[in-house]
Amino acid sequence: MAASKTPHTSTSVGIVTPQTAHFTEPLPLRSGAVLHDYQLVYETYGALNTDRSNAVLVCHALNASHHVAGVYAEEPGNTGWWDNMIGPGKPLDTHRFFVIGVNNLGGCHGSTGPLNINPDTGKPWGGDFPVITVEDWVDAQARLADHLGIKQFAAVMGGSLGAMQALAWAIRYPQRLRHSIVIACAPNLSAQNIAFNEVARQAIITDPDFNEGNYQAQDVAPKRGLRVARMVGHITYLSDDEMANKFGRQLKHGKPGYSFDTEFEIESYLRHQGNKFADYFDANTYLRITKALDYFDPAFGHDGNLSQALKAVAAGVLVISFTTDWRFSPERSREIVQALLDNRARVTYAEIDAPHGHDAFLLDDPRYHRLVAAYFARVTEELA
Amino acid sequence: MAASKTPHTSTSVGIVTPQTAHFTEPLPLRSGAVLHDYQLVYETYGALNTDRSNAVLVCHALNASHHVAGVYAEEPGNTGWWDNMIGPGKPLDTHRFFVIGVNNLGGCHGSTGPLNINPDTGKPWGGDFPVITVEDWVDAQARLADHLGIKQFAAVMGGSLGAMQALAWAIRYPQRLRHSIVIACAPNLSAQNIAFNEVARQAIITDPDFNEGNYQAQDVAPKRGLRVARMVGHITYLSDDEMANKFGRQLKHGKPGYSFDTEFEIESYLRHQGNKFADYFDANTYLRITKALDYFDPAFGHDGNLSQALKAVAAGVLVISFTTDWRFSPERSREIVQALLDNRARVTYAEIDAPHGHDAFLLDDPRYHRLVAAYFARVTEELA
Repeated sequence: MAASKTPHTSTSVGIVTPQTAHFTEPLPLRSGAVLHDYQLVYETYGALNTDRSNAVLVCHALNASHHVAGVYAEEPGNTGWWDNMIGPGKPLDTHRFFVIGVNNLGGCHGSTGPLNINPDTGKPWGGDFPVITVEDWVDAQARLADHLGIKQFAAVMGGSLGAMQALAWAIRYPQRLRHSIVIACAPNLSAQNIAFNEVARQAIITDPDFNEGNYQAQDVAPKRGLRVARMVGHITYLSDDEMANKFGRQLKHGKPGYSFDTEFEIESYLRHQGNKFADYFDANTYLRITKALDYFDPAFGHDGNLSQALKAVAAGVLVISFTTDWRFSPERSREIVQALLDNRARVTYAEIDAPHGHDAFLLDDPRYHRLVAAYFARVTEELA
Repeated sequence: MAASKTPHTSTSVGIVTPQTAHFTEPLPLRSGAVLHDYQLVYETYGALNTDRSNAVLVCHALNASHHVAGVYAEEPGNTGWWDNMIGPGKPLDTHRFFVIGVNNLGGCHGSTGPLNINPDTGKPWGGDFPVITVEDWVDAQARLADHLGIKQFAAVMGGSLGAMQALAWAIRYPQRLRHSIVIACAPNLSAQNIAFNEVARQAIITDPDFNEGNYQAQDVAPKRGLRVARMVGHITYLSDDEMANKFGRQLKHGKPGYSFDTEFEIESYLRHQGNKFADYFDANTYLRITKALDYFDPAFGHDGNLSQALKAVAAGVLVISFTTDWRFSPERSREIVQALLDNRARVTYAEIDAPHGHDAFLLDDPRYHRLVAAYFARVTEELA
């Protein structure tokens, strides 16, 4: 729970409070490891209807969390990461839908992860926390749905890595969602995508403060590596053109200084993003999230045949891509669409001509938001 | 000097020996610093004709050197970096041309650089070695030309950063070259290009072994950072498609291991490239080369007007780009071509439809090589 009562004229869900669910039934992971005891932190907005048919699960991407919309009472500036999408009157309208955000397993925002105590040792998990996959996250989310008494979601929705979860839901629990909303996604990472992740990981792992992931016990953190990892990431989130428009070759001090101090505005931006991230995010979590991305590949168990992999999908699927997204290009989304069409699934596809690159899924391009709103209007019609 | 006598049937210049030229006339650098005493290491192939009109200067890019063609007697496996382009009967034919390769200032292959002793202190330059620009390199190369008695080059040629030098020659010393061959180039770096360089630099500079560049004195080297820097670089040298073709999602051990060991072939490739590079290349040199790239911007002194910047060009210019080069895309080469056309310069432009990305300029695509050969046939006609 839950959004505080906000006037209908507001477009924010207002002040929200995270909740925690504990689970004691062992969760087998794809790696072979088993989590015996874990918790998930989540938030909800809007109200569950009487037949529990209006729940929408929002899955987060790389560094985000369960804090999807609204603000915290004690942190009025800490707005949820998809607040422009979710709220009263917004594309995902909390007047109509009961929206759930959940921090994924292995995270560093409250759900069980490397920063928590490993019950087997009494020490922080650190580097011993298992590698987690998209499918593991989905399994844990399904237990949260059980906990909340939700048999079937009206929709599961996400962008980027969050969209991979929405797709995995449709494959793994076809009867537990009526719609899957898959934004800025790919059916798997390309070699280039994996390469960027690997650079990020190597920056972290070779940081002398990494200590095989057990840095917490030594009261240090591989911040240098995490900083570089985040800088690499940011390059892939923006389009080349967007970077040119935002920063171009603008010099920080008007003229070249011929030194290794910050010279160009783009350097300043990247250093700032890197520093900020290294201060609040956990390196072990970051490593595991990049691995979850790398491993996601529903077609892998089907000799690379994505159509076979998506055979079970019963949900209606909305696929959205952005023209300038070079991380997960429209071509990759079209692979998903084609595989769904091969199975005569109900699929809607839109390619938004937006300049912002991969990050476009987080922005409030009006054509994009109108499209999501229209899709949810259709989902609403199915509600009792 | 020089290529050993090789039979005319051979396509290699054979065994070559680097030479060293010392300079004592102070070299003012764009940064304001002055190099009072320096040396350049170079190699030559073929023979200078009697009127000294057949010399071609080949400028190197990021990590290459004066060793452009042939092999060393004591290292028969150490073939020059552009050996497929230069030799008897090759596109740049050493039967006709006297070819010079030179290691740039600030380098780590013999020309004066951070590893050398700073005469003012008696200690290695290290982090105190000045920031060097493309124009500084060209000025030093001009002195080498003086030293060799070459008043005018038949051509100055390079790919990538080497092409920037070829272009700078045409701007800075218009009467000292008859042709400029500008391959896989850009008139300046984009924000995204700078961003990649900045990530590489930050990886090096934040390596605890960097010691503000004075690592040599402490008998260490920032190898971790240099390794990550090189990994980032390699991503930008290959096209997305080429990476997909070469590595795809191929697993090193056939099935996922769910660990942080090498999982995908692309990871193995990047780690290998990073390790190899960190073992032989100097981090201070790498830092300076990325800065030279960042600063190159002939239009900067002309309010961003590239046509103005290229007004002085008197050379014929051959510009070549590769369709899948996303580091310096064909669009960027076309900017150079357009600016040359604005000045009614003699310009030939070709866009090669090659799959290899930026690295294509180093490969022996037959259409590419035929084109260069045809251009040099034209240059040959001008010889006495």
